[in-house]
Amino acid sequence: MAEDLTLETVTPPGMEDIRAAAAALAPVAVETPLLPAFALDRMTGGRVLIKPELLQRTGSFKFRGAYNKIRSLDPDRRRRGVVAFSSGNHAQGVAAAAQLLGAPAVIVMPADAPSIKIENTRGYGAEVLLYDRDREDREAIASELARRKGATLVRPYDDPDIIAGQGTIGLELVRQAEALGRPLDLVLAPCSGGGLMAGCAIAIKSLSPETRLLTAEPEGFDDMARSLASGRRERNAPGGRSICDALMSPTPGILTFRVNRELVDGGVAVSEAEVCRAMAFAFRELKLVVEPGGATPLAALLAGKVDAAGKTVALVLSGGNVDRATFLAALEAARG
Amino acid sequence: MAEDLTLETVTPPGMEDIRAAAAALAPVAVETPLLPAFALDRMTGGRVLIKPELLQRTGSFKFRGAYNKIRSLDPDRRRRGVVAFSSGNHAQGVAAAAQLLGAPAVIVMPADAPSIKIENTRGYGAEVLLYDRDREDREAIASELARRKGATLVRPYDDPDIIAGQGTIGLELVRQAEALGRPLDLVLAPCSGGGLMAGCAIAIKSLSPETRLLTAEPEGFDDMARSLASGRRERNAPGGRSICDALMSPTPGILTFRVNRELVDGGVAVSEAEVCRAMAFAFRELKLVVEPGGATPLAALLAGKVDAAGKTVALVLSGGNVDRATFLAALEAARG
Repeated sequence: MAEDLTLETVTPPGMEDIRAAAAALAPVAVETPLLPAFALDRMTGGRVLIKPELLQRTGSFKFRGAYNKIRSLDPDRRRRGVVAFSSGNHAQGVAAAAQLLGAPAVIVMPADAPSIKIENTRGYGAEVLLYDRDREDREAIASELARRKGATLVRPYDDPDIIAGQGTIGLELVRQAEALGRPLDLVLAPCSGGGLMAGCAIAIKSLSPETRLLTAEPEGFDDMARSLASGRRERNAPGGRSICDALMSPTPGILTFRVNRELVDGGVAVSEAEVCRAMAFAFRELKLVVEPGGATPLAALLAGKVDAAGKTVALVLSGGNVDRATFLAALEAARG
Repeated sequence: MAEDLTLETVTPPGMEDIRAAAAALAPVAVETPLLPAFALDRMTGGRVLIKPELLQRTGSFKFRGAYNKIRSLDPDRRRRGVVAFSSGNHAQGVAAAAQLLGAPAVIVMPADAPSIKIENTRGYGAEVLLYDRDREDREAIASELARRKGATLVRPYDDPDIIAGQGTIGLELVRQAEALGRPLDLVLAPCSGGGLMAGCAIAIKSLSPETRLLTAEPEGFDDMARSLASGRRERNAPGGRSICDALMSPTPGILTFRVNRELVDGGVAVSEAEVCRAMAFAFRELKLVVEPGGATPLAALLAGKVDAAGKTVALVLSGGNVDRATFLAALEAARG
């Protein structure tokens, strides 16, 4: 709570922070391409562009924010290490960034996280602590750990450095769309705590104010869409489950919602069947491996929940860290 | 045979043809990215870059050559249409290019081609004629069809316009590697008739003469590697089968071999198990859907058949048109 109250007074990043993050990330991150998707153009009557952040280092966009946060720590704090809690993509991003920057990392992960995410996090040299998603408070575990070790807690979204790192996607989107001669009418991005969208929104609304922004969330976890509609931070019903393991945070972040409330135009929610259909479409037509949470913008488009006709629409596909079994089950479900 | 004798006198394309192809392709093709592959860097001690042509329009590089060929026909010939024979990727490339350029297309395909390739070819508006791979001569069927219709036969590789189109990959490779500050020591590309490698070789050896070039073929279909070693066009034993449906041509092309004999440094062959392992690796680590034939360079690298230590190595992953069942079987085989 003390942490939350502090956040109320923190200033969100500006364009200069996002540009600084982009410069720091250039030597270590992937500038993911902005790809045409002709099959989607034919289906929607629009021009659809794909930003595949699954091609990012660690298989998701989370590396951007994590690296930008850890590189911003002074050398002494970095040496004392970092602690994070995450269902998996932030875990891998923090672990890989910490390894590159020489900081020891401990990551608190739910025991039911996809095994690919747990294995990869260990593969980047981090220590992994598993907790029970229903019975334990990951924030409390991580905060206590950080306090005990004198380490820095790297929050998944409610941190200006994290938001600035994710905002580099927005910078790239605007520049790449311009290079294609296709200014963006609409950008859809997956949303959990809201850091990806907050960063993108700061960059995109600054450089291209006419571009509309929509979050894409799983049904049952559409707290950001409902919060944007009501103007206050709504919570999801507790105990829910989703195939979108990366998008299960209970409520928008404090800082991220302050940004998104001002800059984001709304949100859509997609069903599990729509997510599976999008994963199968990405396999067949885009040749991309997309994890469930990363596929929500494509799911929304394919389900007709967004009208792309006559517009240039970019979809941020945020990650591809999906277990083989979950991937196969999704392809199977999409046939049914 | 008359056609073959003619080919002996045809001049291969030069850099100016490849540059013209690149200009023609710019508005319709994907400039595929050149992606880092940090997991492969760790494994090999080199710097490995991926050129994912599976992200190309139609899911393989073949669109480049086909479009460049058909756009070079005069309007009257284009109106009379095009005919092609192909196991699938050239089929889709020709069909999509013909559709964009307003030329009717008939494609002769083996009845056992992957159903995704047959369906997609029809999806691009082409008429598909199926033949029996073991009992019928696809070249004879296609030539007779072209003669009867007054249509143009679009050969899969033994054609300067086709080779020039594929060569645009080589142009991009050199430019993109330079932009990353990583001049290429070695490029590996899949090889069947040899058009992809011939085009790339012309561009790469012209712009970056020190770069070594290696073909990657399936065992039993390593005619290019053996031909490069012996200096004459070797044939594969007839009746063979391979999971690499795209790489089953019986012998190098006449024109392509003339180019490759001069410019290509050698070739490696990979087993079916190595191909499956590469497809599974691409799924898990690169988040890319690679078809068996498109995965041979990665298979060679993972099998230790190419030494990347201390070098910058680019792998052309040439296509991603793989049936769901074949993809799942490959992932399954790679576990075992």
